[in-house]
Amino acid sequence: LKRIRIDASKSYTVAVGSGCVAELGRELKAVAETARVMIVSDDNVYPLYGEKVRKVLETAGYTASQFVFPHGEAHKNLDTYGLLLEQLCAENYSRSDLILALGGGVTGDLAGFAAATYQRGIRFVQLPTTLLAAVDASVGGKTAVDLKGGKNQVGAFCQPSLVLCDTELLSTLPDTEFRAGMAEVIKYGAIGDSELFKLLENTDMETLRKGGDNQLLEAVIARCVEQKKQFVQNDEFDTGSRMLLNFGHTFGHGIEAASGFRVPHGYAVAAGMCIISRAAETRGLCGRETRRRIEALTEKYGLPTGTEFTGEQMLPYIASDKKVSGRQVKLVVTDRIGHAGLVPVNVAELSEWLKDGGVK
Amino acid sequence: LKRIRIDASKSYTVAVGSGCVAELGRELKAVAETARVMIVSDDNVYPLYGEKVRKVLETAGYTASQFVFPHGEAHKNLDTYGLLLEQLCAENYSRSDLILALGGGVTGDLAGFAAATYQRGIRFVQLPTTLLAAVDASVGGKTAVDLKGGKNQVGAFCQPSLVLCDTELLSTLPDTEFRAGMAEVIKYGAIGDSELFKLLENTDMETLRKGGDNQLLEAVIARCVEQKKQFVQNDEFDTGSRMLLNFGHTFGHGIEAASGFRVPHGYAVAAGMCIISRAAETRGLCGRETRRRIEALTEKYGLPTGTEFTGEQMLPYIASDKKVSGRQVKLVVTDRIGHAGLVPVNVAELSEWLKDGGVK
Repeated sequence: LKRIRIDASKSYTVAVGSGCVAELGRELKAVAETARVMIVSDDNVYPLYGEKVRKVLETAGYTASQFVFPHGEAHKNLDTYGLLLEQLCAENYSRSDLILALGGGVTGDLAGFAAATYQRGIRFVQLPTTLLAAVDASVGGKTAVDLKGGKNQVGAFCQPSLVLCDTELLSTLPDTEFRAGMAEVIKYGAIGDSELFKLLENTDMETLRKGGDNQLLEAVIARCVEQKKQFVQNDEFDTGSRMLLNFGHTFGHGIEAASGFRVPHGYAVAAGMCIISRAAETRGLCGRETRRRIEALTEKYGLPTGTEFTGEQMLPYIASDKKVSGRQVKLVVTDRIGHAGLVPVNVAELSEWLKDGGVK
Repeated sequence: LKRIRIDASKSYTVAVGSGCVAELGRELKAVAETARVMIVSDDNVYPLYGEKVRKVLETAGYTASQFVFPHGEAHKNLDTYGLLLEQLCAENYSRSDLILALGGGVTGDLAGFAAATYQRGIRFVQLPTTLLAAVDASVGGKTAVDLKGGKNQVGAFCQPSLVLCDTELLSTLPDTEFRAGMAEVIKYGAIGDSELFKLLENTDMETLRKGGDNQLLEAVIARCVEQKKQFVQNDEFDTGSRMLLNFGHTFGHGIEAASGFRVPHGYAVAAGMCIISRAAETRGLCGRETRRRIEALTEKYGLPTGTEFTGEQMLPYIASDKKVSGRQVKLVVTDRIGHAGLVPVNVAELSEWLKDGGVK
């Protein structure tokens, strides 16, 4: 069990290890001696792990109930948020109780936003069940739901009280889900950890995702969490260096949204990293070898390096992104493996960037 | 123009004065040199002051649009919140823009919660148009909307960037609205400012609410804001002394909710202060003279000292209040004028308290 201590506006522990769900009861004692726990999960994940988690909680003396919603990004909206809040209220949940997110990024985002705002904030615990959530969504306290007009347009900063990341759950993920998570892992390597990037170049997906006591996967996740920790501690409220974590995300969101969210987040981010790297290369902002290694690693893990959607389809969504301030957007460019920077670009120039990145 | 500087997690100015809406453009320059401003207001207030505010903004070089919703607490819900968010998104509002609440407590709560969560937080300016909002809701950063299951059950802490309180707008308020605000003014006197309490005993409502350059009203509002400032600076996130501001509110919420929100907030709080004071007197926690003066001042300003609703009708709402932690609730008791404390009470004992407070 690797333990990483995050010191943001609130301090909490991210524990990574094989089979650590069994430790939930013990770990939770440090957060709340007694409490009622609302397990928030979707209808894919709850049938797999919900009852196991509930038993662990009840054995440790907690009372649990559950809110299970239909899976998928399409349900990460104000309607589902409202239903969860009304259930918390109907069951008389109070500020001494807590919400436990059991699932991937959608579940964590939704449950976290509810935890941030129900009675102006109750405690929040995360059990990520996807690689994406483990390396990214579970650390940093960004929570959100989507509006009809855009992804993650409503939300709050809400640090969890505890994150338990059980690698055993991740090794059974479908291929697509695991690959989607790898996109964020590659991102961490590209923007801030050249050793991690090399490690990924020198291993393969089968080795990373094998079940049992998988020390390699544990190490890779811990490494991503450690890096995100640095960004979050330096810039919790995302006004400076933390923006570097958006590498691949600005164009990625354009792809996701243009597809009506049928392209998974990780796949879109992978394509976004490659597109921006190619566009940056033509402007002398990213070295040829750097761009080549990013594309090669993306391909190695079965992720797309481009998109079928056109710039025209993507642009309206990119222009309404939260990262747009006035008429300018700060694009993240990896100039060499392990190092990234922000490039301010006028919204009017984005279509040129997309074209140079190989988008039709 | 009286200026009060609030230093919470964010610093901002509350300016109180007659006709100060005209200064909005100049005051706003310190907050944002250029920005788009979404004026949030209800269908009572916008027709009165909306176009005036918009002109002041446009003269100062800002672009304004408006979100006007049906007036009343019944519309302070997730549906109206969702409509406002979708409009912000549809009009491409970004983090460099701001929301301006023009109205009473409902408008401030709704607009503030939207500002706290839209794109995880954009700036927020308040122009209170009721006495209640001026002395209470505009300071302190508590924002919220109601759930079907309870009042103010979802929300966030969100400090405004600027509050402009124009006493000219308040002097034209309907009687009922002005009285409702007086309940909170009396509360400030009771829990923490015996001089203010005496001042209220020695004046009357007509003097307080006369139009023109009303220095007395300006002074009373500034005094309430100064006091709230102390509570907020000491306990921004409402885990300790700030709870004293809830004097009259726990039972008041019971009355409001039992009436289906037909009893205005201020009226319910007034009754709540008298009920808790009588109940506290029977337990030796509040002096006879203190209880008498609270009742007398409440009556003097035309506010109710009790309720027609029964304990049975009120209790379910009180028991689901945010202030209930586990099975205990902390009731605020004014032991002598200008001083209050918290009394932890078991939820099971609340019906006895209500009975002793004169509730049927």
